[in-house]
Amino acid sequence: MEPHIVKSFDEALNTLHAQVSRMGVLAEHQLGLAVQALVDRNDELAGQIVQSDAEIDDLEAAANDQVIRVLALRAPVADDLRVVITALKIASTLERIADYAANIAKRSIVLTAMPAVPTVRPLQRLGKLVQGLLADALTAYHEENAELALQVWTRDKEVDEQYSGLFRELLTYMMEDSRNITPCSHLLFVAKNIERIGDHATNIAEMAHFLASGSPIEGTRPKNDTTIAHT
Amino acid sequence: MEPHIVKSFDEALNTLHAQVSRMGVLAEHQLGLAVQALVDRNDELAGQIVQSDAEIDDLEAAANDQVIRVLALRAPVADDLRVVITALKIASTLERIADYAANIAKRSIVLTAMPAVPTVRPLQRLGKLVQGLLADALTAYHEENAELALQVWTRDKEVDEQYSGLFRELLTYMMEDSRNITPCSHLLFVAKNIERIGDHATNIAEMAHFLASGSPIEGTRPKNDTTIAHT
Repeated sequence: MEPHIVKSFDEALNTLHAQVSRMGVLAEHQLGLAVQALVDRNDELAGQIVQSDAEIDDLEAAANDQVIRVLALRAPVADDLRVVITALKIASTLERIADYAANIAKRSIVLTAMPAVPTVRPLQRLGKLVQGLLADALTAYHEENAELALQVWTRDKEVDEQYSGLFRELLTYMMEDSRNITPCSHLLFVAKNIERIGDHATNIAEMAHFLASGSPIEGTRPKNDTTIAHT
Repeated sequence: MEPHIVKSFDEALNTLHAQVSRMGVLAEHQLGLAVQALVDRNDELAGQIVQSDAEIDDLEAAANDQVIRVLALRAPVADDLRVVITALKIASTLERIADYAANIAKRSIVLTAMPAVPTVRPLQRLGKLVQGLLADALTAYHEENAELALQVWTRDKEVDEQYSGLFRELLTYMMEDSRNITPCSHLLFVAKNIERIGDHATNIAEMAHFLASGSPIEGTRPKNDTTIAHT
């Protein structure tokens, strides 16, 4: 194999990794800001988050094109291929995470026009937990750290517990005062969006574990929405 | 290029297409059954849908492996690569659609233990509409029909209008009688799941259009959740 071919493949792969890495930083940042905008009832910040979503969409499109380029540079062997396909899947997951964050920001703007519901603390707590999971999942991916990936995977159970608590709390507020029904309905979706981001972070952890160790995480996934889990 | 190499590439591609096609049929079927189980308050059917989800997960894993095999068979040129990567993305989208259908089935089981809410008709209508969109998006993909793809893309606006109407209707039921709050909260998620499936069908239509015509659909996407769209 000619060295310059190998070199250009590595360079192309590095560009792809840099794109995914940048997407990860942005997605995590967007989630943090979205929860902050909601908690602070800050419409200006929420508006910025909605706007910034386009940047992540563009990055995903660029990552897709880069994948095509990387694959076209040579007939890749199995392991290299898995690395590239995983990058593609993680880019797609991060785009979706950013989408959920933008959705939270949009609902935050709707919510500032409605009476405040006292769910700030548990929402903040859930947001911080999921942001931490996402950060660790991305670290596990970039550092190929199977142990950290496994840790993230296990911690998703906490997300579920907090989400379920929040779900029940929101129903209680709705039952107490019918004026809470509309804002709480939006908050149900906000809570669900955060929980879904946790789910996607767990997906990233699973992919990171496979890349790092060559084997899938064993056992049944602890993740479960207990608001419908008794089924 | 040796003919037998080309042949094995084509064969591998056909296998991939058959897998995606089977996933599409199953996903569409699961959606139809999930809405039916909900409407009929049929726990047995709902349980079957939840169980069948594993088959679609397995098919997606097989499609992923097949993509790796197809790509490994030769250094693919740009167009072939796009075909393969699109199949990968559509498989991933269909897995997610089936996941939403299974989620509807799970909520359906929770809902049979609660008082019935009179939203059967609009839920059924939304389900049928989205099922039709998904079927057409898949046809557009398999037949490389750009016109049909564009049609699907345009019709997603209807999904949004019906979803928004349903969202408001559910809030009204909650306000009228607090005993409706818990079932309606689950129905909010059911409605949102159907709307998200419509969104994913639109994504498939976009990919089908690009594959068929070589160019993206022009204009801003009509799709928008108007329950948060005035933001």
